[in-house]
Amino acid sequence: MTETLPVTDRSRLRRLHERGHFDRATINSILDAQPMCSVGYIIDGKPFVTPTLQWREGNHVYWHGSSASRALRNSRDAQVCLSVAILDGFVLARSGMHHSVNSRSVTLFGTASKVEDPAEKLDKLGRFVNGLFPGRYEGLRPDHAQDLKATMVLGMEISEGSAKMRTGGPVDEEEDYDLPIWAGVIPVHTSVGKPIPDPRNIKDVPMPDHVRSFRL
Amino acid sequence: MTETLPVTDRSRLRRLHERGHFDRATINSILDAQPMCSVGYIIDGKPFVTPTLQWREGNHVYWHGSSASRALRNSRDAQVCLSVAILDGFVLARSGMHHSVNSRSVTLFGTASKVEDPAEKLDKLGRFVNGLFPGRYEGLRPDHAQDLKATMVLGMEISEGSAKMRTGGPVDEEEDYDLPIWAGVIPVHTSVGKPIPDPRNIKDVPMPDHVRSFRL
Ligand SMILES: Cc1cc2nc3c(=O)[nH]c(=O)nc-3n(C[C@H](O)[C@H](O)[C@H](O)COP(=O)(O)OP(=O)(O)OC[C@H]3O[C@@H](n4cnc5c(N)ncnc54)[C@H](O)[C@@H]3O)c2cc1C
Ligand SMILES: Cc1cc2nc3c(=O)[nH]c(=O)nc-3n(C[C@H](O)[C@H](O)[C@H](O)COP(=O)(O)OP(=O)(O)OC[C@H]3O[C@@H](n4cnc5c(N)ncnc54)[C@H](O)[C@@H]3O)c2cc1C
Ligand code: HEM
Ligand code: HEM
Repeated sequence: MTETLPVTDRSRLRRLHERGHFDRATINSILDAQPMCSVGYIIDGKPFVTPTLQWREGNHVYWHGSSASRALRNSRDAQVCLSVAILDGFVLARSGMHHSVNSRSVTLFGTASKVEDPAEKLDKLGRFVNGLFPGRYEGLRPDHAQDLKATMVLGMEISEGSAKMRTGGPVDEEEDYDLPIWAGVIPVHTSVGKPIPDPRNIKDVPMPDHVRSFRL
Repeated sequence: MTETLPVTDRSRLRRLHERGHFDRATINSILDAQPMCSVGYIIDGKPFVTPTLQWREGNHVYWHGSSASRALRNSRDAQVCLSVAILDGFVLARSGMHHSVNSRSVTLFGTASKVEDPAEKLDKLGRFVNGLFPGRYEGLRPDHAQDLKATMVLGMEISEGSAKMRTGGPVDEEEDYDLPIWAGVIPVHTSVGKPIPDPRNIKDVPMPDHVRSFRL
């Protein structure tokens, strides 16, 4: 398995291509940092985008939902585009055009396939739960057969796509640096608040480590 | 102008439809809370998704980029899907299937149009900057004519689409509430860090209020 994705006509960055990355290490680090993603697919020749959660296992990315989901049914065995974007900050420059954002993003292209084998599907769902909350899956009420039947897991090989990143301060026109304009970066972070126990938790059930130390 | 969007075949929520909203007030509040969005469009019959920033003015939504942008050129006068999604928390239940996220999201459909008139384009870009950073635009180095020429602004009427929201704790099967499993919500927030002034700012330029009090 090569460590760098091929640059295809679909994935070649044309705008600010110096911000582009095709190595798996960069792509994987962004996928692993943000489960929320947007999946693009087509129904009747028109574009649709659905926000969902992705998880990665090796060189594949997965997402899940109802077996009856319109998004999943129209993504299955079809071309999709999966996008993850993380906003790291606003970049304020001395002219409008040089404003920007610091960000990390990944765009993946391919054909989504349904995970057909029930044991494999169960394994993927367990890894999804444990990927977010290590060790949680084994402590849950085991899935009912009908829950698993009602669930579709789609997967896609990470074989075509790109990452794009911007970091650092504003880059202005040389002559604009003398202007009395505040320029700089406003960082943006995602943070996790204090866990809120369900009032119906049974008495004295301890807060697990995977909740207490959850970070995004 | 009606206060509620029509429910079309494209925008009708089939899954968990009780979480759906079609009133403009809800849709607008989500668009206004999160500038980051994902735009879906089609090239050669294949789906593409591009992360970008949107801003709203009345019943229109706008986004911008290079006049040469592949995303914008293929969205212009074409069907697009614009999606905004905000992750508010992870919902941990007593069984795998009842895990969820708290979230607010909007999906909009329509045909994107280029803002052709140069004065109107300038006005839209100024509102974009000032929408994020009130009063900033007028203090910037005025845009060069070539900067404006290099910029495309696309707009779309908010006329077809939906919002979806989930709040609150887990909802489990009645018989599972007796299990000794920690259930609850882990809230997720977006926060803004301490602004980082550009080292090349001229001496004593004050940090403006629109930076100091910026919130997302
Ligand atoms: C942060 C986040 C994470 C999510 N994670 C998952 C996940 O892991 N698995 C999962 O199955 N679902 C997830 N969802 C919900 C997902 O976006 C869909 O709502 C759901 O999958 C149903 O899809 P569908 O195509 O079957 O919906 P349908 O109800 O068939 O969609 C029909 C129409 O309803 C509207 N609609 C559907 N979803 C949304 C939405 N989210 N916002 C606004 N309008 C909408 C659109 O107009 C759409 O065209 C997540 C949503 C958010 C915001
Ligand atoms: C949070 C965020 C906000 C942004 N806001 C704006 C904005 O307001 N205006 C704006 O013009 N752009 C914005 N961008 C950048 C935007 O996503 C595109 O990279 C840019 O607009 C160029 O688009 P294009 O279609 O012309 O790119 P091209 O370079 O022609 O795209 C060709 C290929 O490059 C790859 N590619 C392009 N963009 C990305 C990406 N972001 N991540 C991974 N791969 C990519 C894809 O494979 C794509 O098919 C933002 C990005 C992020 C992450
Ligand atoms: C707060 C205000 C603004 C923000 C946050 C912002 C953000 C961005 C971002 C993130 C990009 C993409 C860069 C990339 O591809 O990596 C971009 C591109 C661009 N923006 Fe803006 N922008 C702002 C205002 C403006 C204004 C006012 C103009 C015009 C006067 C403008 C003109 C452009 C142009 C021409 C590009 C394309 C650059 C290129 O691909 O070469 N922007 N903007
Ligand atoms: C941490 C783990 C999980 C999270 C965060 C999660 C999150 C979600 C979210 C956000 C939805 C969309 C709900 C909506 O449309 O509003 C969803 C739907 C669904 N999930 Fe999960 N999920 C998880 C684990 C699982 C597991 C393990 C299963 C199966 C055993 C499962 C089965 C389903 C099914 C069947 C649906 C469709 C519900 C419906 O539309 O009626 N999920 N999930």
